[in-house]
Amino acid sequence: MNAKNITRRVRNIRTDLSSRGIDALVLTRPANVTYVTGFFGEDSWAVVTGRAVYLLTDSRYTEQAQKECPLARIVQRKDPIAEAGGKLLGKRKLAKTIAVEKSISLGEYDTLRKNMNVPLKAVDGLVETQRSVKDAQETAAIRSAAAIAATAFQRAVRHIRPGMTESELAGILDLEMRRQGAKVGFETIVAFGPNASRPHHQPSPRKLASRDTILIDFGAKYNGYCCDITRSFAFGRPTAAYRQAYEVVEEAQAAAIRAAKAGAKLVDVDAAARNAIRESGLPVYGHGTGHGFGLEIHEIPFLKEGAKGELQAGQIITIEPGIYLPGRLGVRIEDDLLITESGPEILTDRCPRGPALA
Amino acid sequence: MNAKNITRRVRNIRTDLSSRGIDALVLTRPANVTYVTGFFGEDSWAVVTGRAVYLLTDSRYTEQAQKECPLARIVQRKDPIAEAGGKLLGKRKLAKTIAVEKSISLGEYDTLRKNMNVPLKAVDGLVETQRSVKDAQETAAIRSAAAIAATAFQRAVRHIRPGMTESELAGILDLEMRRQGAKVGFETIVAFGPNASRPHHQPSPRKLASRDTILIDFGAKYNGYCCDITRSFAFGRPTAAYRQAYEVVEEAQAAAIRAAKAGAKLVDVDAAARNAIRESGLPVYGHGTGHGFGLEIHEIPFLKEGAKGELQAGQIITIEPGIYLPGRLGVRIEDDLLITESGPEILTDRCPRGPALA
Repeated sequence: MNAKNITRRVRNIRTDLSSRGIDALVLTRPANVTYVTGFFGEDSWAVVTGRAVYLLTDSRYTEQAQKECPLARIVQRKDPIAEAGGKLLGKRKLAKTIAVEKSISLGEYDTLRKNMNVPLKAVDGLVETQRSVKDAQETAAIRSAAAIAATAFQRAVRHIRPGMTESELAGILDLEMRRQGAKVGFETIVAFGPNASRPHHQPSPRKLASRDTILIDFGAKYNGYCCDITRSFAFGRPTAAYRQAYEVVEEAQAAAIRAAKAGAKLVDVDAAARNAIRESGLPVYGHGTGHGFGLEIHEIPFLKEGAKGELQAGQIITIEPGIYLPGRLGVRIEDDLLITESGPEILTDRCPRGPALA
Repeated sequence: MNAKNITRRVRNIRTDLSSRGIDALVLTRPANVTYVTGFFGEDSWAVVTGRAVYLLTDSRYTEQAQKECPLARIVQRKDPIAEAGGKLLGKRKLAKTIAVEKSISLGEYDTLRKNMNVPLKAVDGLVETQRSVKDAQETAAIRSAAAIAATAFQRAVRHIRPGMTESELAGILDLEMRRQGAKVGFETIVAFGPNASRPHHQPSPRKLASRDTILIDFGAKYNGYCCDITRSFAFGRPTAAYRQAYEVVEEAQAAAIRAAKAGAKLVDVDAAARNAIRESGLPVYGHGTGHGFGLEIHEIPFLKEGAKGELQAGQIITIEPGIYLPGRLGVRIEDDLLITESGPEILTDRCPRGPALA
């Protein structure tokens, strides 16, 4: 990761910390560790002080850390991580007021505290808030992920034939993303027919009928950054009911996309899609209308009823309304948007859309 | 999951809790929630009291929970989970002394505590210890996962050809597991040539040469249970150095397998493999010699230097020594063993072995 971007991120964190009267922050959430160090390995913590950024890792990752982290001081631990973290902070007296992320486990928090003599505060969302606005390098990675996903989708749908299972189609799509040098961003959802009415359906041995419907929710990960796309379409001629549901979801998504400008309230963007579905008389989906993503697949901001705050330029979000009729059908359409001052830019428009695939 | 097995698990937990003077246990770790309820969804907690087992979930999963959980009382929440958990425990006065798993996040622990008026203890490893010994249903699922993985491996290696990337081979192997109705148990590692010297290498666009070596670490997940296999082999004729390293690892693995009997000390099984490598004069691997697995890919027991305890009949573990020569080669061989009173049964012997593939 670009050293200049990392320097800026660390500077922003220090500013935030000093406004809270904190001298050092222990980062334990993997995506936050990556964000402030560039390190993509596991089982490692970062410590941001006023003078340095430490990466606390072990011998498995030392070589990788030296390559990936241009700026961090790499501390190789032998002890369990919370014990090593406590010793680093306690013995070296790096700071007087130290904070740790609330996502730390209770067990590790206790160990960390016992191994240092400095009071320990807990903070939440400090790095996540900054992460929600993407820089040029992050946006480029997400664009690449979206392009790879679109190509993989186009190649995978050519393999669709009656009798194949949901699991098999998911595997083919994943393979097509990997063939392009990407990773699979999250567990691909493929749902045939009424299975699509469960938003969290997992691919099963259910076989595709000769006239059927398909929902695919998937994303590639490239240079550490995901994308997140859902496509719904009929295999064979869509029924009138499917076509109607599809059109309503399409309109709902278009309404939310129109509303997704920098400064728009999150609740208003959510309501734009939700109201379009409500007006159709079809049931309104129980999940949110969209969410940020990047290093993780779900990030700030969350567009849902009761959400506080506004969209900011530079945020990248999904818009994904759906209609779910249990036992009958499910339609969800999800695209990725870069929020700019002048309106949204759709990053996933190269991925073909339903209701029928050419 | 079998109601009889779940009843036995809950009874064991209650016995353990009452010996510690605890009336109720809040389970937050997903695999532990699955273990005591049968539920495979996300974002849900279980509460075990003397009279009942509660599954705290949300509307997305209510239908799934009703199918999967024959015995649990399903509580549908609208509030964030820790708030809902606190209310369930506090308002209903389900118990006087309540414990929560130490793996809970600090933030959720604080919220849980604030929403109930009962003191909260923290416990560790209570369910994990029981999970390490598999029942017949669990063992059968792992056998199926191992059989699927072996078949997938045999099919995938037929696709190997010069110029293909590590990522592509990983994708093909994953697809072959999914074609058989299994999931991918964990992110498949494929490492060509010297990349195999990094035990945590991630599949890359590195292309296979016409004379090269391959390490594959992978596993299928079937009915919720994983397996974990590593194979190392040459593509084309192996070099003398590769063949020598392979033979040493093979001997080290055989030594550990011979030692892996019920009642054997974990450190002794670890040492059996480690000493065989040390005697060869080649460098000794930095990771453990093996680990349990099941619902999760890494479970108790961990076979490593300094480990305490003994193997027990019914445990299922990996044995996976390796030799890593940075910049030159990496060889690891990993098989899965069921520990019995009379010695280990190898569950992964249908998966072909190196040093060259027929």
